[in-house]
Amino acid sequence: MTTKKLGRQTVAFANPPSIAGHANVVGKKEGEGPLAASFDFINQDDTFGEASFEKAESAMQRMALQNALDKAKQSAATLDYIFAGDLLNQCIASSFAVRGQDIPFFGLYGACSTMAESLTLAAMMLDGGFGEWCAAMASSHFCSAERQYRTPLEYGGQRTPTAQWTVTGAGAVVLAREGDGPYVTHATVGKIVDKGICDANNMGAAMAPAAYESLTAHFSDTGRAPSFYDLIVTGDLGSLGREIVLDLFQKDGVDLTNYDDCGCLIFDAQAQDVHCGGSGCGCSAAVLTGYLLNGMREGKWKNLLFCGTGALLSPTSSMQGESVPGICHAVAISTQKGG
Amino acid sequence: MTTKKLGRQTVAFANPPSIAGHANVVGKKEGEGPLAASFDFINQDDTFGEASFEKAESAMQRMALQNALDKAKQSAATLDYIFAGDLLNQCIASSFAVRGQDIPFFGLYGACSTMAESLTLAAMMLDGGFGEWCAAMASSHFCSAERQYRTPLEYGGQRTPTAQWTVTGAGAVVLAREGDGPYVTHATVGKIVDKGICDANNMGAAMAPAAYESLTAHFSDTGRAPSFYDLIVTGDLGSLGREIVLDLFQKDGVDLTNYDDCGCLIFDAQAQDVHCGGSGCGCSAAVLTGYLLNGMREGKWKNLLFCGTGALLSPTSSMQGESVPGICHAVAISTQKGG
Repeated sequence: MTTKKLGRQTVAFANPPSIAGHANVVGKKEGEGPLAASFDFINQDDTFGEASFEKAESAMQRMALQNALDKAKQSAATLDYIFAGDLLNQCIASSFAVRGQDIPFFGLYGACSTMAESLTLAAMMLDGGFGEWCAAMASSHFCSAERQYRTPLEYGGQRTPTAQWTVTGAGAVVLAREGDGPYVTHATVGKIVDKGICDANNMGAAMAPAAYESLTAHFSDTGRAPSFYDLIVTGDLGSLGREIVLDLFQKDGVDLTNYDDCGCLIFDAQAQDVHCGGSGCGCSAAVLTGYLLNGMREGKWKNLLFCGTGALLSPTSSMQGESVPGICHAVAISTQKGG
Repeated sequence: MTTKKLGRQTVAFANPPSIAGHANVVGKKEGEGPLAASFDFINQDDTFGEASFEKAESAMQRMALQNALDKAKQSAATLDYIFAGDLLNQCIASSFAVRGQDIPFFGLYGACSTMAESLTLAAMMLDGGFGEWCAAMASSHFCSAERQYRTPLEYGGQRTPTAQWTVTGAGAVVLAREGDGPYVTHATVGKIVDKGICDANNMGAAMAPAAYESLTAHFSDTGRAPSFYDLIVTGDLGSLGREIVLDLFQKDGVDLTNYDDCGCLIFDAQAQDVHCGGSGCGCSAAVLTGYLLNGMREGKWKNLLFCGTGALLSPTSSMQGESVPGICHAVAISTQKGG
């Protein structure tokens, strides 16, 4: 068998896996934003009928997975593996979502890059010949994230201008070895990039250099120009991080006109008072499985580069004076198998 | 390409990847235990020269990786991917260990099953044709785990009889597509098993049913009897969990005479006052990369079944009254490529 590696970081799939189903679940605020029409289920009080926000987050993952399986016309028993992760300590949203589902499970931690990480590994698993069906999913919940990372909601803490708003949402993709697409054709696996940003309330700035490096590696490894893609989407740098990515490319003489960010797309930042935009694993997961993949199915875009970005910090690392390491995994999705 | 799946959960590698290097680093207490001679580096004060226990844990991972690469006669630049995880919130031990290493990175969370999870994914990556070299690693640190999961050391809390002692240790394996072995021949990917154990101080009992289920699946999927293996090792159920596994197999009429557990092997439970034995990602990582793989190289064992066991709880899930979900990934390692 010959290697499928292109350059140092990119894989070109020999038999690109097909996205057979995708679904999402979001909270009330997300359902009031510009992408409302693209969500499968919008909960009105963010509890999803559960007794805690953490359990609500697990419920979202279960609902998204079930819905994605339904759309793929498959049952959970079909899945060879599931890859899932979230932001909670010890990733309990995912473990408790998958518990009882009887599916071989790989737990991931990639912060907000998790949707891209899970999609990459699921695609590798299928193209590598290790199964026929995989699921990839991720979630975040504003209320569970606030009390874990920042302050309990009851505290009413003031947000900094560069802060982002953790999305209450989950997204799941069901991937098949064979199918009608859209297809996962390439994956560029990110390295950890740390430019010394120490402000945990400015994650866009911390993650933007990682996005720039993975995008640059992707273009170099594949020989593709940015213009090959109808849309390049990072998730979730927010408005400040998005500006930094545009600036970094402009310094290289590249004008990214086809570029946006899930954190900017999901909210109307002004009207919804979310400062720099959305964040959290659930942000890019919900935007991918709604707006983006729906758009591809509707013929809006043929070639998409989906770039999950993660800030690999913890409250402890910040308290110990550490800077914020960033990572970005880029996944090329095409309506054409040879895309 | 035909699938390499055997049954529902097991993969048989077409071209079993070779373990080119393996190394570990442990703390003082581990260095006073029965496996002392198998450790590459024993630190005398558990700080590894760092200012915090969390940074010490990162330092252990870096040292173990560097040493494993040295033994494999490779540099970090050779690695196509690194898979790593730990027990700290947001897996910062791994992220900060890999930062600056310029290696495409997949972050994992599998609790104490992480060494087996990372080895499984690394082997799949190579056998799938996505690269030539991978690293898999995991760590834990008694002091960082105590203050995060239980109480700060200064509190001097009393330990329950069923408690295990988190190992201060890290282990790293460098895996190659081609080489002289030992070889990773099979992997059985675990499902989440939860039998309703709610005592977070009795993780052996919570994880034992997952170990039993994955072992049973492995034997059924491969058609191998337990006696095929010279040694079957779980990591880390401790003495109580080990007894439960033996009991469960005895009910099936199977007498596991070739079975042990990393948590029982690493400490002298009586003399070192560790109650039910060792635990933590670093336990099975250090035992695999020392005692077990050294033993295989010395001709002690030809066929080994290494079963990483994880308890997928968090302090939050326990406080919210949840039971403890367990998982177990089983990895078959052989001195023979066709083993």
